Amino acid sequence: MAAPAPLSPLAPKTYPILPEIAGVRFATVAAGVRYAGRTDVMMALFDRPAAVAGVFTRSKCPSAPVDWCRAHLARGSARALIVNSGNANAFTGGVGAAAVAHVAEAAAKAIGAAASEIFMASTGVIGEPLDAARITRVIDTLLTEARADALLGAAKAIMTTDTYPKIATQRVKLGDAEVVMSGIAKGAGMIAPDMATMLAYVFTDAPIAPAALQAMLSKSVERSFNAITVDSDTSTSDTLMIFATGEAEGAPRIEDAADPRAAPFRRALDKLLRNLAHQVVRDGEGARKFITVNVEGAASRKAAKRIAFSIANSPLVKTACAGEDANWGRVVMAVGKAGEKAERDKLDVYFGKIRVAHDGARDPAYDEAAASAYMKRDSIEITADLHLGRGRATVWTCDLTKDYVAINGDYRS
Amino acid sequence: MAAPAPLSPLAPKTYPILPEIAGVRFATVAAGVRYAGRTDVMMALFDRPAAVAGVFTRSKCPSAPVDWCRAHLARGSARALIVNSGNANAFTGGVGAAAVAHVAEAAAKAIGAAASEIFMASTGVIGEPLDAARITRVIDTLLTEARADALLGAAKAIMTTDTYPKIATQRVKLGDAEVVMSGIAKGAGMIAPDMATMLAYVFTDAPIAPAALQAMLSKSVERSFNAITVDSDTSTSDTLMIFATGEAEGAPRIEDAADPRAAPFRRALDKLLRNLAHQVVRDGEGARKFITVNVEGAASRKAAKRIAFSIANSPLVKTACAGEDANWGRVVMAVGKAGEKAERDKLDVYFGKIRVAHDGARDPAYDEAAASAYMKRDSIEITADLHLGRGRATVWTCDLTKDYVAINGDYRS
Repeated sequence: MAAPAPLSPLAPKTYPILPEIAGVRFATVAAGVRYAGRTDVMMALFDRPAAVAGVFTRSKCPSAPVDWCRAHLARGSARALIVNSGNANAFTGGVGAAAVAHVAEAAAKAIGAAASEIFMASTGVIGEPLDAARITRVIDTLLTEARADALLGAAKAIMTTDTYPKIATQRVKLGDAEVVMSGIAKGAGMIAPDMATMLAYVFTDAPIAPAALQAMLSKSVERSFNAITVDSDTSTSDTLMIFATGEAEGAPRIEDAADPRAAPFRRALDKLLRNLAHQVVRDGEGARKFITVNVEGAASRKAAKRIAFSIANSPLVKTACAGEDANWGRVVMAVGKAGEKAERDKLDVYFGKIRVAHDGARDPAYDEAAASAYMKRDSIEITADLHLGRGRATVWTCDLTKDYVAINGDYRS
Repeated sequence: MAAPAPLSPLAPKTYPILPEIAGVRFATVAAGVRYAGRTDVMMALFDRPAAVAGVFTRSKCPSAPVDWCRAHLARGSARALIVNSGNANAFTGGVGAAAVAHVAEAAAKAIGAAASEIFMASTGVIGEPLDAARITRVIDTLLTEARADALLGAAKAIMTTDTYPKIATQRVKLGDAEVVMSGIAKGAGMIAPDMATMLAYVFTDAPIAPAALQAMLSKSVERSFNAITVDSDTSTSDTLMIFATGEAEGAPRIEDAADPRAAPFRRALDKLLRNLAHQVVRDGEGARKFITVNVEGAASRKAAKRIAFSIANSPLVKTACAGEDANWGRVVMAVGKAGEKAERDKLDVYFGKIRVAHDGARDPAYDEAAASAYMKRDSIEITADLHLGRGRATVWTCDLTKDYVAINGDYRS
């Protein structure tokens, strides 16, 4: 491994204090899966079966643990989550599937649960066999050491090239009761729509049935983790799961995502996932700028999102941001190549509030000095208004720097 | 402008001698469009009307000269081609369209032709108004200085961030006669399928009707310029045109692309365009490796090409190549994200002749040292065999280096 990258300049300046969540405890251990001198296996342990929902990579070549989680999600019940970093157990064939089953069965036996109630994820190098024994031999330690106040440690144990742990928390009313939800995430490269090398887990004490939980999660992901990109690459392992212990005192049980009593919970979940997704972008490999891309006036919302991703994934737009260059011509190029309806002579482009292009040409009032000054900020907002319809979308990305190339040019060496 | 990049290490070691082509002459001039101390306008002047065909960017926001060429191509007759570098005349609105018309009309008047017989292209910075007077005032000089042996100079005048001029030539039988074709190209970034910031022009003395010429060109482009990518970005200006003067002595006139007498010409055109396309990739911004991506056993040819581009455009695959890292896991990732049918457990991946993955896992015989040695070459071949069907495709790209970021991070400054 290369030396760890220095802390992202876009890292949060403060962290929230994470409240304990009734019914779930966390443990981590340095199991030596790959890294030395750091924790690399985490467990979330549910005192009683928790409701569970998940969203996974759309890759046609998913990792073995993704196959496992998908197969067992329908049952909607979780007793433990085990995640290792260092090895993705992806493209490891029958050996990889056997490793997952072996770990799940060992954990189920130790806990007194069904193997189908053990959820798993692995992140790190692809294509190397995962030595299951490195994980099974630490299960007893994990069970012994699990504590309600150890979620931050869990966030650290799942890091790979991340430069900081990603955590977020929300307190919200559910009926007359207060419930909490806290989430952790990892992922620094291979971040693209459809959940690229991204792992995120949310834990809540709200009593919400699995189907309702799934509906909320599937909707919320579209405006959070499915609206970010670092490099357009999509991992084989992307996983977002939510676990609800239901142990919040006095909270009503939610069976239907549309239940009006759940509205504050849904909004809080949106906010929490967006917060975690932004933290992932802010820790994009080599990132020095956080970039918000807005597309307005597109023919449809779908067209707007596709154009927004065309801008956000363009290496030329991303290198221009890295170079602090208000190069709106590249934004036009990216709009043009998206394949969606666009009329050059109606297009406006803004950097922040500065309109740089209007009706198909450079804005007559455009002030290059003001635009250049704006580009020096560490958060940049690019807006393209197509003036064709009402479709709009926002996605988030980071700039493309020499450090991205350096980090990915010798990841395995 | 940043200082010119050093010559690409992948540049050709020798150049062909370009034969003269009856009926066409070339001239270049330093017109000061943007650059100082170099030629930046070229003209190809046809002694009599030449047959013409073209393929243009699929961008929804094409440049003003692309609009112009498309509008006048149907007539199929050319008297001159004028190309400037330094300014793309793209996203310049009505002013841009007026500049094109103004130059065409001035050139038409000077030559004694119709404005619709003047074809144009501009390459360089997007979104800056083009000062047409810089071009119109050199038209007389261009007409005076046009020479049959000046094609190499023309190739130099259209360069932007290219580090070398791109030329190729073929001699081929047409009936009992010998005809020649020679081509020039430019384009170093924003190279993606569908003709990204890429200009290429082919000149031949073969007597071929415009419709036949168009059919041949449209077919040939799919396996040459539409099978290369540098960075997945697509320019507003991509243009490929072929001009046939018809002045080769004794050659039969070809009215139909399927005419069997034209078969050697078609093959030679394929070869010439592939040669130029490869030269464009070899001069990709910051490129140090030339990468051939083969996909075999896909469900269809279309699926194969989409998967091949998913691999060729993946920043993680491209940075791995830059780092000389035989990271086949990233190839699997790119196959998986393409959205086409793929079965992990049937997939084989090769670097050169070395099979690194077989049937969904690392090849038992895989030798990391041999693979690492292979990755040090300056030409790398990656093959993914899906074992699902008979679809196959080959595309070409280059690696993604820190120099790419450096070149594009301060292109305008």
